[in-house]
Amino acid sequence: MQRRAPSTKIFLLAAPFVLTGCAVARAASSDGGAGASVNAPGLDPFVLLAVAVMLAVAKVGGELFVKLKQPAVLGELAGGIALGSLSLFGVAWVERVRADAVVAALAEIGIIVLLFEVGLESNVREMMSVGWTALLVSTLGVVATFAAGMGASALFFRGTPVLAHVFVAAALCATSVGITARVLRDLGRLQTREAGVILGAAVIDDVMGLLILAVVAGAIRAAGEGQSLALLHVVLIALKSVAFLIAALVAGHYVVPHALRGAGRFESRGVLVVFAVAFCFLLAWASSLVGLAPIIGAFAAGLVLDEVHFEPFAAAGGRKLPELLAPVGAILIPIFFVLMGLRVDLRAFGSVAAVGFALALTFAAVVGKLACALGAGRGVRRLAVGVGMVPRGEVSLIFAGMGASLALPDGSAVVSAATFGALVIVVAATTLITPPALKWALGRNGNNAESEGQYLPR
Amino acid sequence: MQRRAPSTKIFLLAAPFVLTGCAVARAASSDGGAGASVNAPGLDPFVLLAVAVMLAVAKVGGELFVKLKQPAVLGELAGGIALGSLSLFGVAWVERVRADAVVAALAEIGIIVLLFEVGLESNVREMMSVGWTALLVSTLGVVATFAAGMGASALFFRGTPVLAHVFVAAALCATSVGITARVLRDLGRLQTREAGVILGAAVIDDVMGLLILAVVAGAIRAAGEGQSLALLHVVLIALKSVAFLIAALVAGHYVVPHALRGAGRFESRGVLVVFAVAFCFLLAWASSLVGLAPIIGAFAAGLVLDEVHFEPFAAAGGRKLPELLAPVGAILIPIFFVLMGLRVDLRAFGSVAAVGFALALTFAAVVGKLACALGAGRGVRRLAVGVGMVPRGEVSLIFAGMGASLALPDGSAVVSAATFGALVIVVAATTLITPPALKWALGRNGNNAESEGQYLPR
Repeated sequence: MQRRAPSTKIFLLAAPFVLTGCAVARAASSDGGAGASVNAPGLDPFVLLAVAVMLAVAKVGGELFVKLKQPAVLGELAGGIALGSLSLFGVAWVERVRADAVVAALAEIGIIVLLFEVGLESNVREMMSVGWTALLVSTLGVVATFAAGMGASALFFRGTPVLAHVFVAAALCATSVGITARVLRDLGRLQTREAGVILGAAVIDDVMGLLILAVVAGAIRAAGEGQSLALLHVVLIALKSVAFLIAALVAGHYVVPHALRGAGRFESRGVLVVFAVAFCFLLAWASSLVGLAPIIGAFAAGLVLDEVHFEPFAAAGGRKLPELLAPVGAILIPIFFVLMGLRVDLRAFGSVAAVGFALALTFAAVVGKLACALGAGRGVRRLAVGVGMVPRGEVSLIFAGMGASLALPDGSAVVSAATFGALVIVVAATTLITPPALKWALGRNGNNAESEGQYLPR
Repeated sequence: MQRRAPSTKIFLLAAPFVLTGCAVARAASSDGGAGASVNAPGLDPFVLLAVAVMLAVAKVGGELFVKLKQPAVLGELAGGIALGSLSLFGVAWVERVRADAVVAALAEIGIIVLLFEVGLESNVREMMSVGWTALLVSTLGVVATFAAGMGASALFFRGTPVLAHVFVAAALCATSVGITARVLRDLGRLQTREAGVILGAAVIDDVMGLLILAVVAGAIRAAGEGQSLALLHVVLIALKSVAFLIAALVAGHYVVPHALRGAGRFESRGVLVVFAVAFCFLLAWASSLVGLAPIIGAFAAGLVLDEVHFEPFAAAGGRKLPELLAPVGAILIPIFFVLMGLRVDLRAFGSVAAVGFALALTFAAVVGKLACALGAGRGVRRLAVGVGMVPRGEVSLIFAGMGASLALPDGSAVVSAATFGALVIVVAATTLITPPALKWALGRNGNNAESEGQYLPR
């Protein structure tokens, strides 16, 4: 830890030395004399200011939208967009927040905590009971979105090889469930059947997205090298993902109770919440190892750490895990949503060509996912399921970035600059549409209290 | 956020593209087409594994030491050292944790939260009532340590210019109060008069350390350029620091109650804890602006956010702020102490020459700070105050790094590789001595319960 970070205001005398200090510490340690290790530089105090401002913006924006009877998350996104728009007026500070790795890490830890909490609040049996429905919903959504995306891309770019259309269509397929989970929770609807179907389908979506990514990237590479695609690899990836999910749930059922019984004998304070978070991070890391998003692992960890396992702690008169996690989430989760808002670059809406293609792609993305509602079965608000699957997020952006680096056989990039901008707009639009649309689709008579409220005071 | 981080296991097909994805996303955005911003890359899943392991090590180590009737923090440090020693057996993973910027940032946020909590639990009036005592303790400690350090350095390195001795002595002066605060809290002694004197003196120490740094670095630079030191700069720095502390406390007394009354009208959940953390981060950032350590600002924020101001929230039947912060601290604080342990490089103890000088320096460091106990006044366990001021931390290491980059008029470095290693050992030794010594100095009949316990179940 670097307690005195360089500050232009103060280290008038010492600044030049401080700036080289880190490099020197490394040099000195590798002198072999009596070596200090290569330690990371300390926290840039800028991060503290950024997080403080983001939290204030989140709470003020959230409060405004709660007063307007909208989900708080929309206010946090809007606050982020407002903050981000300052960069159009030359406020370099905002660009620095967007590019800061520690802020991004805190935001990602925030979304991991959110999905962990959502997992904890979800009922495993309820999820299992909608398993086949979720599979059907996910499959329909991916197929319909892929077809619609192919159509839109082919319509706008006639001369382009088919593989380019395939790539754009594939980028549209992956649902980003963070927004939906947050809205369902803001509205107190996590316990509904709709929520079960959406969350289950989102998990399956993630596995499918992984498969599509592998297939498309493999196909493009194979086309470039004149080879055929190794189907074996694709099958291996699918097996690994499924095996991970099953292993996590089985381990949770048989191993975690024993482990917790051991930890329940611990005398030191905070054991419950610390071990729970460690377990969540462990599964999040493990899921990234098999190529799944870390939030899928966090969600699985939440499902596994069912209330059932907490008897040794409950017997000690302790508070429940969701109650303990609530303030942790209250601090970290808004960082993610404000950052998502911050990253909506309003300049993307300045190019007419990009906006036209983006509107077509957005339309395809929304219609494709709404089609999945047909698989939702009876006794479920189908429209709500469809709307819940609409948000696209960072996976689409990763696809876009990868596509820009892939060359077609004719030498051009798979994803052009215009297509890249359009995909950014799709992500922004679907993210912003979902909260109000989902609230509307779930009906106006719903319980409007935030479910956090049961664990957290103001 | 990068949901699919590169994973060697899975992205067999896509890996080469993923690796270039980030760079390409930047390139694509600067194409100007319909620009996505330069976003930070996402969280490396490695951080999740590192934090999970560190938390598990912290809790197991802490539990072991609690069972041995020692403060939990010593167990966390020991756990970190044990984990760190794996690097001696070629476990590269450990080096990666030491060098990871996000882990370092989380650790620093942890210590900021700790000092915020300590500030919240401290009584402002109690602190003020020991103000002059704290000033005397701090001054005595700095003067005595400086003298002892000069002596030790002069004894071992006779030929070296005086400025080199001055620099080493200065590096010994800065107390690192995190360890002491944690031990006092583990032992439930934060409300004692000893704690008030130590915390007050530590704040003053920080201002003094800043002054010494400015003076010494300025003197060395002036000597190199044949100029005299600009005294004005030193005075300016001192005025800024003092002005910051006074401004923070005055603002807290007059402004914060009004601001909180406004926030008290908010309907959304988590407002209290989120605004409190935002305020803490804001003051931590502000204190780094005036050149003070961020933890000083966090401590001031805690002092300011006295329970008195929380009436609008308490009226709503909410839980108290320390209770809400407890799980946040339980997760973040151990990361700092395990990382401190991890960074103790056992190889530093392998060189006889370094160990000899290090023992002399450690002796000087301990004796110098113990001397400050003479200023502690009556009705206080003087020895406990002296021991509480013993720990040295990252400030000494920063001094060491800076010194290694500064050249004396004869061209040699102010801090040689051997001196650097010795300073690393001083930090490790004082950190490890303090917890058991402080427990012993406070007497065996003390309340051994962790004060966290009042807010956090197991």
